[in-house]
Amino acid sequence: MLNVTLLGSGGGMPMPERHLSSLMINYKGRKILVDCGEGTQVAIRKMNAGFKSIDIICITHVHGDHIFGIPGLLSTMGNSQRLDPVTIVGPKGISDVMRGLLLSIKQLPYSIEIIEDPKGKLGITNTEQGLKIKEQKDGMNDEITVSTLELDHSAPCFGYSFYLNRRPKFEPEKAIKNDVPRLIWSKLQKGETIVAGDRKYSPDLVLGEQRRGIKLTYITDTRPTKDIPQWINQSDLFICEGTYGDNDDMDKAIKNKHMTFMEAGELAKKGKVKELLLTHFSPALKEPNFYEHNAKKEFAHTTIGYDGYRKNIEYKN
Amino acid sequence: MLNVTLLGSGGGMPMPERHLSSLMINYKGRKILVDCGEGTQVAIRKMNAGFKSIDIICITHVHGDHIFGIPGLLSTMGNSQRLDPVTIVGPKGISDVMRGLLLSIKQLPYSIEIIEDPKGKLGITNTEQGLKIKEQKDGMNDEITVSTLELDHSAPCFGYSFYLNRRPKFEPEKAIKNDVPRLIWSKLQKGETIVAGDRKYSPDLVLGEQRRGIKLTYITDTRPTKDIPQWINQSDLFICEGTYGDNDDMDKAIKNKHMTFMEAGELAKKGKVKELLLTHFSPALKEPNFYEHNAKKEFAHTTIGYDGYRKNIEYKN
Repeated sequence: MLNVTLLGSGGGMPMPERHLSSLMINYKGRKILVDCGEGTQVAIRKMNAGFKSIDIICITHVHGDHIFGIPGLLSTMGNSQRLDPVTIVGPKGISDVMRGLLLSIKQLPYSIEIIEDPKGKLGITNTEQGLKIKEQKDGMNDEITVSTLELDHSAPCFGYSFYLNRRPKFEPEKAIKNDVPRLIWSKLQKGETIVAGDRKYSPDLVLGEQRRGIKLTYITDTRPTKDIPQWINQSDLFICEGTYGDNDDMDKAIKNKHMTFMEAGELAKKGKVKELLLTHFSPALKEPNFYEHNAKKEFAHTTIGYDGYRKNIEYKN
Repeated sequence: MLNVTLLGSGGGMPMPERHLSSLMINYKGRKILVDCGEGTQVAIRKMNAGFKSIDIICITHVHGDHIFGIPGLLSTMGNSQRLDPVTIVGPKGISDVMRGLLLSIKQLPYSIEIIEDPKGKLGITNTEQGLKIKEQKDGMNDEITVSTLELDHSAPCFGYSFYLNRRPKFEPEKAIKNDVPRLIWSKLQKGETIVAGDRKYSPDLVLGEQRRGIKLTYITDTRPTKDIPQWINQSDLFICEGTYGDNDDMDKAIKNKHMTFMEAGELAKKGKVKELLLTHFSPALKEPNFYEHNAKKEFAHTTIGYDGYRKNIEYKN
């Protein structure tokens, strides 16, 4: 299961009534944070979403409304006696920006690792030191597969897809039928391949059909691109920017490389997602609900995001 | 007159219910901001204290809770079409930290000037491009004199004193008695010295007694020092940190180089200030009012600061 909290639903500037767009993903009590604009640590505190267990921070792009909260959050995590390393993932330019931001932090009791502009997929495993994210090799033992998509914005910008893998079911009858010694059942179940004597035992000897995992996608800031529908395909939850609610603001959306509610709805429809959650509302968009119809006309299962939106995403049987 | 707004009264970390300690000084519609922790731009918006006209930012020290809001604020000021330069004043280290923080801002439509570790006084004048602050020469035409005091904290840290000068009264009888041509009365009144023919006309020929201006002092983060009382002497408003309300937290105050309410009260008493306003409360200090008595025992005219505290400081006749 993945538990998600939309910490903020605003774009551009932190407002008294709306935090900047940011998502907290909770997996087995450990956290992945997506974007960290100014005030995100206040939103985390407000929603009791927990600092200490943030192991990974994924940054979509280095515009201020997505990163100016990083130094404050890292300092607060340091003050809450965190010792485990934190990994920050981001597009081209993230290392320079982080070096600048970290200049103003005297010291942290934990280390920061940066993955800049990863080309392939990334794999997340749950370790004693929390969630670890690395460029993926075979992905066999990764609990979450993260992929990025280059978007169309005024700075290098990533969409993020988080796929929580689901192991096939363990089938004891199959294990018995394939003469697999009981001793190694659980190892195979965990995805290991064991060689014993002249035989090689692989996980498929004890496991049933592949099972569908959970797909969560997060896209801000961008114009619609032709790659997005395929990339978000069948998402259980597709979180997407809708900076402008009104279709009449299309010219602003084009000029500022953002999207309207309608365009986000079109992407959701083409991508056959389960649910569309809109976020990253322009400061001028005081009542995003007024324009819900512009998205729903394209895609009925649309939710207008709000600070504190929470959802448990379960495996679908 | 000086109008002041305490934008935030917290220390250490921005809290949902309390912004970080920061002061907005409004002089003739232009603004001086003291300190800018994360969330200060939200407080400014909440209190309608106005972005565009912030000409000067005085930083006490480069700990995160006093500077992490700078990039966000500067960006928002840029987005609100400000073109006039902004001057940032701060102790040793401010330039490096600013260079790091500004790395993450693509560009601003105005320039940033930095005055690092000024040794002497600074003078502020009101120009068409807003308030200008420079290292003071003779100070004749400065409307506000700013002085800094080195404090005792875990980083180079400034206290700030803002003295709004008050010109002596213009006395026409005196001007007539001293045969000063009417043509130059107003120039002398503005502090200019005019040479005409073989005579030198100086302002004192038309002006009465020196008049007392307005003294505003701002001290966070520090232990009490022997220099503070003299330096804050006769302040109309002395804004001082009181990180810990309870006298039992003295050991924390000493360890973290902060002060208790009682210590701030002692300073106010020694300095014979008019009013003490306490700020920079520890995140653990949920109800600072509970400990008001610890300050008032030393200095009766104490106010416990709160986000949005406002005061007009008028000239005293």
